[in-house]
Amino acid sequence: MMRYSLFGESHGSCIGIVLNGLPSGLMLDMEQVMQEMKRRAPGGSLISTARSESDVPEIVSGLFQGKTTGAPLCALIRNTDARSKSYEDIRWLARPGHADYAGYVRYAGCNDYRGGGHFSGRLTAPLVFAGAVAKQILREKGVDVYAHIRELAGISDTSIDRAHPDLSALAAVAGKSFPTLDETVGKAMQNAVISARSEGDSLGGIIECLITGIPAGFGSPDFGENAEGVLAQYLFAVPAVKGLEFGAGFEMARMRGSQANDAFYTDDSGSVLTRTNHNGGINGGITNGMPLVFSVVIKPTPSIACEQDTVDLRTGESVKIRVGGRHDPCILPRAVPVIEAAAALASLELMS
Amino acid sequence: MMRYSLFGESHGSCIGIVLNGLPSGLMLDMEQVMQEMKRRAPGGSLISTARSESDVPEIVSGLFQGKTTGAPLCALIRNTDARSKSYEDIRWLARPGHADYAGYVRYAGCNDYRGGGHFSGRLTAPLVFAGAVAKQILREKGVDVYAHIRELAGISDTSIDRAHPDLSALAAVAGKSFPTLDETVGKAMQNAVISARSEGDSLGGIIECLITGIPAGFGSPDFGENAEGVLAQYLFAVPAVKGLEFGAGFEMARMRGSQANDAFYTDDSGSVLTRTNHNGGINGGITNGMPLVFSVVIKPTPSIACEQDTVDLRTGESVKIRVGGRHDPCILPRAVPVIEAAAALASLELMS
Amino acid sequence: MMRYSLFGESHGSCIGIVLNGLPSGLMLDMEQVMQEMKRRAPGGSLISTARSESDVPEIVSGLFQGKTTGAPLCALIRNTDARSKSYEDIRWLARPGHADYAGYVRYAGCNDYRGGGHFSGRLTAPLVFAGAVAKQILREKGVDVYAHIRELAGISDTSIDRAHPDLSALAAVAGKSFPTLDETVGKAMQNAVISARSEGDSLGGIIECLITGIPAGFGSPDFGENAEGVLAQYLFAVPAVKGLEFGAGFEMARMRGSQANDAFYTDDSGSVLTRTNHNGGINGGITNGMPLVFSVVIKPTPSIACEQDTVDLRTGESVKIRVGGRHDPCILPRAVPVIEAAAALASLELMS
Amino acid sequence: MMRYSLFGESHGSCIGIVLNGLPSGLMLDMEQVMQEMKRRAPGGSLISTARSESDVPEIVSGLFQGKTTGAPLCALIRNTDARSKSYEDIRWLARPGHADYAGYVRYAGCNDYRGGGHFSGRLTAPLVFAGAVAKQILREKGVDVYAHIRELAGISDTSIDRAHPDLSALAAVAGKSFPTLDETVGKAMQNAVISARSEGDSLGGIIECLITGIPAGFGSPDFGENAEGVLAQYLFAVPAVKGLEFGAGFEMARMRGSQANDAFYTDDSGSVLTRTNHNGGINGGITNGMPLVFSVVIKPTPSIACEQDTVDLRTGESVKIRVGGRHDPCILPRAVPVIEAAAALASLELMS
Repeated sequence: MMRYSLFGESHGSCIGIVLNGLPSGLMLDMEQVMQEMKRRAPGGSLISTARSESDVPEIVSGLFQGKTTGAPLCALIRNTDARSKSYEDIRWLARPGHADYAGYVRYAGCNDYRGGGHFSGRLTAPLVFAGAVAKQILREKGVDVYAHIRELAGISDTSIDRAHPDLSALAAVAGKSFPTLDETVGKAMQNAVISARSEGDSLGGIIECLITGIPAGFGSPDFGENAEGVLAQYLFAVPAVKGLEFGAGFEMARMRGSQANDAFYTDDSGSVLTRTNHNGGINGGITNGMPLVFSVVIKPTPSIACEQDTVDLRTGESVKIRVGGRHDPCILPRAVPVIEAAAALASLELMS
Repeated sequence: MMRYSLFGESHGSCIGIVLNGLPSGLMLDMEQVMQEMKRRAPGGSLISTARSESDVPEIVSGLFQGKTTGAPLCALIRNTDARSKSYEDIRWLARPGHADYAGYVRYAGCNDYRGGGHFSGRLTAPLVFAGAVAKQILREKGVDVYAHIRELAGISDTSIDRAHPDLSALAAVAGKSFPTLDETVGKAMQNAVISARSEGDSLGGIIECLITGIPAGFGSPDFGENAEGVLAQYLFAVPAVKGLEFGAGFEMARMRGSQANDAFYTDDSGSVLTRTNHNGGINGGITNGMPLVFSVVIKPTPSIACEQDTVDLRTGESVKIRVGGRHDPCILPRAVPVIEAAAALASLELMS
Repeated sequence: MMRYSLFGESHGSCIGIVLNGLPSGLMLDMEQVMQEMKRRAPGGSLISTARSESDVPEIVSGLFQGKTTGAPLCALIRNTDARSKSYEDIRWLARPGHADYAGYVRYAGCNDYRGGGHFSGRLTAPLVFAGAVAKQILREKGVDVYAHIRELAGISDTSIDRAHPDLSALAAVAGKSFPTLDETVGKAMQNAVISARSEGDSLGGIIECLITGIPAGFGSPDFGENAEGVLAQYLFAVPAVKGLEFGAGFEMARMRGSQANDAFYTDDSGSVLTRTNHNGGINGGITNGMPLVFSVVIKPTPSIACEQDTVDLRTGESVKIRVGGRHDPCILPRAVPVIEAAAALASLELMS
Repeated sequence: MMRYSLFGESHGSCIGIVLNGLPSGLMLDMEQVMQEMKRRAPGGSLISTARSESDVPEIVSGLFQGKTTGAPLCALIRNTDARSKSYEDIRWLARPGHADYAGYVRYAGCNDYRGGGHFSGRLTAPLVFAGAVAKQILREKGVDVYAHIRELAGISDTSIDRAHPDLSALAAVAGKSFPTLDETVGKAMQNAVISARSEGDSLGGIIECLITGIPAGFGSPDFGENAEGVLAQYLFAVPAVKGLEFGAGFEMARMRGSQANDAFYTDDSGSVLTRTNHNGGINGGITNGMPLVFSVVIKPTPSIACEQDTVDLRTGESVKIRVGGRHDPCILPRAVPVIEAAAALASLELMS
């Protein structure tokens, strides 16, 4: 059974992950792993944090002579560019939109507050590592995972045909400096981010993800086993995800059954397919053989330079806060491989 | 640890549920249980199925002298008005939007096809029973669950203030024949349903749910423990749910951080609250003491009288299908107590 | 994933089980099921309780046209011969060796005390039902489960060769009125039971179980996945089991490595086997292809007619108790199919 | 919820553990942790392996300013004295009694064979670390864990009174160079080990463990929740454990109910206790407030210098093997803190 444990804090010595339940015998392609790591790594550009981390995973177990052994795989990633100073200044101020207050209550004030500690988006680095491993296993089963930014600042990327997607266009996204199908749209999105940053503000958006090659028949209608629920577990474990929809999702609220139903047909090879894919490849909690398609909404980065109202955790007194330090004005581009990683791990569980 | 197992099929002798992990000593108010059952029961009206079931749960274990014993609670609900005839006619035709095809593959054609079998929405009756029990336990902890139809056929109910909701208005919804805050809006929605039904079609919509009284500090950022993930497990196990958003959810894609962040303040009693509640009461996977607020999209009932394209499961040949039998043209009104039930069970797990 | 939920109380309307994760398409042989039920059913003889139950399982879900559907299978067994009178008399007296006191504390006095309530050995009836289903699935995989009473009242049955057992002798045990390999030994054991009963006392003993046909390679060294741990979960869930040993078990304390190690060899068909099987078919938490062999100790029935010291749960005062009612003076013969059932369910989980 | 993941291999760069579900705010006493580590560390004496490891755990997450944060705690332990040479020679020979063959099948030959890889007893070092943390948490709840070697080479230590144990004598065991209550007995056991080693052989034995301070009312009769089952999960995850018995355990096979039942009484402070403790502090899967007492059998170290029969994994051919390298002739003394660690972790889960 697949399961993983993330550990570490933003400003500790290292972060990492233990992955249980991997198959043995996968010859791990570290070059591909590093490509995934680089997609998530902070770029130092105008639209990402200035923190610079090489994010090279050091695999300390579960790999022998280049191949997975089937034993738990543990990878460590060193923190090399942590600067805690800016966090000391606001140590007792609950940053709005952050877990500072909830974490303070949950852990009785003992959580590591530096850089968000264990709540930090930095913990998505080992998740991307795990996703890179999962993708290599999935590829051997004919399963691929794609994602792009569907919407940012009200700007929409080219919409995909959920039933018969253009896979080569989707595959190209991973190689781009900004993960959209349409590069002109991507430029407009980047300008919106730069503009928000210049005002000390941040932006959210929507990422759409598509998984091809999972055959019909995985999942179940029951609690804990339904395909939507399995994916949801992995996706809501990604920080900043506040919503998840399958296929047409919330659009279905305005559809009639005659529109939302995906008509079945048989193609030349005898495969049963659907003409549309409003259900995102899942019926009754079970995969139906069509691409799994879902979207997640990522909230705007809560760390912003604008002045905000908050309280002092010690006294409860009203105070003003400006969050300094180095932050992404929009996490969407770096979140694309993270969502793919969560989707890849969920797919492995679903198919196990 | 809370967990439940639903069992049964739409046209079998009975359906039911086993609930594990209940506290002992709850004096179960069966009148309140039956009120919840009636909110979900088919009404026989123009906007619901003509199938008539009394849906009285027979508790066969875990209750002694009127109180929960702490041992597993099992309740049975008899099926008394099943008519399988209309299902025999379309036995081999995969109904679009339904689990017929996915289930046929998953279970190698052995699943009970009558009335959708174990996939039937009828399985939500024991879920509502379990939710009614959970609500009584929650009430002793000061936790309440409310829901209403937020949107149907493009018509929106009065929006709620997520940070400071009008609880008496929300509480009144459960007693109404149509579960909206605004009754004029409710009438318009009903007319839309009647109109869709008259055309042999169906409608979906959005249900919004709010949970008050859960203190700050429940949940965790980690996989399998984060508050959004726990709720998602229970909600996606409800048939027809295709999307879930917390707080402002997908709207956050068009917000800036300065809008989406919920500013903290301290009220007169010294409680830390937030001015807005765009995060739906959860930060970093942990409750922050504000109401938990989320919405789910319910897809249009897939069983429609209109002619649709599909395939014969035996031969793969193209065929036309019209789904006869007795079906709800819109499941939303009956789904409101189901979503509340799932939310109540998830809340119990979260607080355990 | 296999899991089960037992529910019900000894003197409630019925007891039952929900089984999740069964494969679809098993044509269930109800005659074989009833044979297993009868092996556990009280015989009314001198060595078992006088309570008379037909124990016919009523399958209410998960079976359609005689075959498993893959959906949760629920079976109910009616309680028809409960007599609560003798329990009212000792309601507040903690029976030594029973869960009365622990359950009173755990459930704040709300547990059903009649006949032991949910703690009753009667709950093993639905477990035997589930085991009978599991055995039919296992048989299709070439896996068989055997058991016998290894020891009772200091009398030992013929010992089995753990590496090369006489399977036809073991198979014959299930058809006997008393489950030993050697019938003379069985008679002696029965006399010991009759003798203990005549003195108002009871007896414990050891059951040995053997599972053939599980190939090498199932399980893992890790927590929650190792073969011994999986079996232990199922076996310790059987009431009255107080110890479990694999292969030579506690005898290994007096062995040297040169004796305890099972030497490998290759047989004519090229299979790798071991000459002895002191490790009970498991190395490093993983099956090695040899028969799985384990023994459990069953404690003497705690309900005895002898006078015992105890306390009144309400006042804590010292009192004397004699447990009336109808009880088995020795549960061993009826426990043999229960241990087989637990072993069968564990084997299914291990191989899934 | 408590859970842990062990990772690493005997001859890899490091081994370690991730612990989830710890409470926040525990000021970790590293001196006590190191005392526990030293109890398990190889001594280099005549009765233990010559491998020398400092086994200082490096805590990389979950600890901040000396206190647990509540986030996952990860500790690494470096491997500094691995010598793989002797394993290369026997790489393809399945060591009898070891997991070589089962692991070869399970992991398709990809497991790390050096020093047993992930199967190595060396993995118990991080387990002892975790146990040391758990013990400090338990101590704050008034719970203590004790163990001693009950039997070795047919030599028995002083038996303990399970109902009213001499705790100061038990507490002294942890500070001794050889963990028995009676030091003369301990010397005799050591001589037996030295004698076995001189003949190229090894010894097994029995460890008895006692947990005090867990109040009545933890656990449940149900699958996955019963106290015996929870302990069994943790104990069978320890390599070399082949049997587990609670209280009088297998002795109960020769007892009558009148002997095995533990009579209740009320002491001067009004607490309900039992005169004997044959049930090991558990009735019906629930703690009864008496000390939890159990014993495990540890099999003789399978790595022995004597010549043994085995097969070549590549060809299946019969070959002779002598296991060289550095091995403990008897793991019992070092296993005592390991069993305590497993017991401590299980107690935390049971009480959570």
